[in-house]
Amino acid sequence: MSHESSSSVPGSTRPVSVIGLGQMGSALARAFLTAGRTTTVWNRTTGKAAALVEQGALRADSVAEAVVASDVVVVCVLDYATVRELLDPVVASLTGRTLVNLTSGSPEQARESAEWAGEHGFAYLDGAIMTTPPGIGDPASMILCSGSPAVFAEHRETLAVLGDPLGLGEDAGLAALYDTGLLGLMWSVFAGWLHATALVGADGVPAKAFAPTAIRWLTAVGGFMDTYAPQIDTGHYPGDDATVDVQLAAVHHLLEASRARGIDTRLPELHRDLMAKTVASGHGRDSYGRVIEQFRPSRA
Amino acid sequence: MSHESSSSVPGSTRPVSVIGLGQMGSALARAFLTAGRTTTVWNRTTGKAAALVEQGALRADSVAEAVVASDVVVVCVLDYATVRELLDPVVASLTGRTLVNLTSGSPEQARESAEWAGEHGFAYLDGAIMTTPPGIGDPASMILCSGSPAVFAEHRETLAVLGDPLGLGEDAGLAALYDTGLLGLMWSVFAGWLHATALVGADGVPAKAFAPTAIRWLTAVGGFMDTYAPQIDTGHYPGDDATVDVQLAAVHHLLEASRARGIDTRLPELHRDLMAKTVASGHGRDSYGRVIEQFRPSRA
Ligand SMILES: NC(=O)c1ccc[n+]([C@@H]2O[C@H](COP(=O)([O-])OP(=O)(O)OC[C@H]3O[C@@H](n4cnc5c(N)ncnc54)[C@H](OP(=O)(O)O)[C@@H]3O)[C@@H](O)[C@H]2O)c1
Ligand SMILES: NC(=O)c1ccc[n+]([C@@H]2O[C@H](COP(=O)([O-])OP(=O)(O)OC[C@H]3O[C@@H](n4cnc5c(N)ncnc54)[C@H](OP(=O)(O)O)[C@@H]3O)[C@@H](O)[C@H]2O)c1
Repeated sequence: MSHESSSSVPGSTRPVSVIGLGQMGSALARAFLTAGRTTTVWNRTTGKAAALVEQGALRADSVAEAVVASDVVVVCVLDYATVRELLDPVVASLTGRTLVNLTSGSPEQARESAEWAGEHGFAYLDGAIMTTPPGIGDPASMILCSGSPAVFAEHRETLAVLGDPLGLGEDAGLAALYDTGLLGLMWSVFAGWLHATALVGADGVPAKAFAPTAIRWLTAVGGFMDTYAPQIDTGHYPGDDATVDVQLAAVHHLLEASRARGIDTRLPELHRDLMAKTVASGHGRDSYGRVIEQFRPSRA
Repeated sequence: MSHESSSSVPGSTRPVSVIGLGQMGSALARAFLTAGRTTTVWNRTTGKAAALVEQGALRADSVAEAVVASDVVVVCVLDYATVRELLDPVVASLTGRTLVNLTSGSPEQARESAEWAGEHGFAYLDGAIMTTPPGIGDPASMILCSGSPAVFAEHRETLAVLGDPLGLGEDAGLAALYDTGLLGLMWSVFAGWLHATALVGADGVPAKAFAPTAIRWLTAVGGFMDTYAPQIDTGHYPGDDATVDVQLAAVHHLLEASRARGIDTRLPELHRDLMAKTVASGHGRDSYGRVIEQFRPSRA
């Protein structure tokens, strides 16, 4: 079985196939080539393979040819529907190989794909790339991976060519779920930062002057998150640094300063509401971690 | 004039008075003592001075005594009204000295205080402490300072005892304004993180397992902010990494995943709305920095 025979090939030299050469797929293939891997590539629009072939990639003339060329097949296309459209017709040749799906999708789609892999006897890892194409190859870039820990361990070295692979465990849906949550965090950071930038901008501070302070502040805020995370798991919120009561008082300054400058207040209003409800539920003396209860499904 | 004579005392040995020994004021006084400064302290509730006096602080029996004891007077009390209540009766003895006000307040209050200082012939710096009391003395902690750059330069070494002093320039209101904006950023980060933690938590992921990934992700997001800041200043948003169009498509996944798990959707709805309005105004192919226009005062 080729999956087993692949184990005898050292991870650092294992050949790889890349299906999908859009902006991201091309970056993936380039990183494998740079790492000296035998890299077979396929893309619907064949022209996109040309630059990679010049760099030494092997061109597959069909998806089937790409699949049989390597024991590890990486797919990165538009969406999961496209993954199935491309691979269902050749699914028999996947048997015994490993499919690493780096296409973005939902946790449910990832779990379905893992079942599909199980039915057809191939190993499956679902991944989420937490960077843009220029970040591929940078060990600072997180490559979130979910699915069998054994399969992850076997291919960790191959994934490390692309960034820092983090195994999230058996449930294949977790990479997609983390990805979704982290994008939400990113938009919240952006919104908070853009709001603050508009606020200081109203008094003449350029965005470039404010940004280093804001970026540095994220490190301090990360420290608070580190403190609150175990509090959330234990449901015990000591409030020994800053209580929700104190923060609720401070959010009014943000609202006033925003209003005085004509800056949109919906974001600070949402914060105020989350805090006020936490206080109203009797938890004003708790730490901010308690605010998570405003997001969780109500037990009513 | 004592302000001028103070210039002959090397910054690193200059005596300091601290007025207000609440949680923060006590931490400030302790840091000055640890740094070997002659430190005179005063607090309304006199008992709070005891521990500091044991560590070598000099106790002032009145605000007036505290003011005349040092050329640099640091005040950190509840609010600006309290600052004025305490210092107005002794304002004549401030003449020629420097008042460093580390009390939290609004930009308007800070600017009024600077005017008040000007009228009475003393130097004034307005500061915002971007940490909790345990962070005082840590060079990672930002101490935002606004007011005369010359006065800031003269007292930088004294402020460096407390953390990393950052001079924001002449406008005394900026430390308070940055402070307000950065707190807003903090609440946005918290909200985005708590929402994401609730989301992954619904599928069984502990907050402690998710937090390191979220904290690490903040560094990547900071990189995007660094890219967008100059775009905001020039009003030119190339959209060469990820466009608002692409992000608007992705926010729907977050909304769906949240709804499917019964997680509150007001935060992602706000993001969707900010993005949708940006797209509707014809800027879907721009980078996310363009979303700042949704916060700024409309020109209508
Ligand atoms: N770009 C990023 O910053 C980034 C970051 C993280 C994750 N991702 C994810 O990576 C995946 C690819 O993104 P990308 O940036 O590379 O997008 P892209 O540049 O638009 O490329 C899309 C790829 O999908 C292929 N494709 C689309 N429909 C197809 C079909 N019906 N049949 C065959 N191939 C089809 C395209 O082939 P053609 O060339 O023939 O059109 C192309 O290879 C997406 O799931 C995206 O969410 C991207
Ligand atoms: N704690 C933090 O994490 C933190 C972080 C950044 C900024 N700050 C700012 O630092 C300042 C002080 O905060 P804190 O944490 O030290 O608060 P705190 O522990 O409540 O102390 C308040 C201080 O103000 C004094 N005070 C209040 N009303 C007074 C009055 N009418 N006359 C005389 N003194 C009065 C108190 O004196 P008594 O002891 O006699 O009551 C005490 O010294 C605030 O502006 C706060 O926003 C705090």
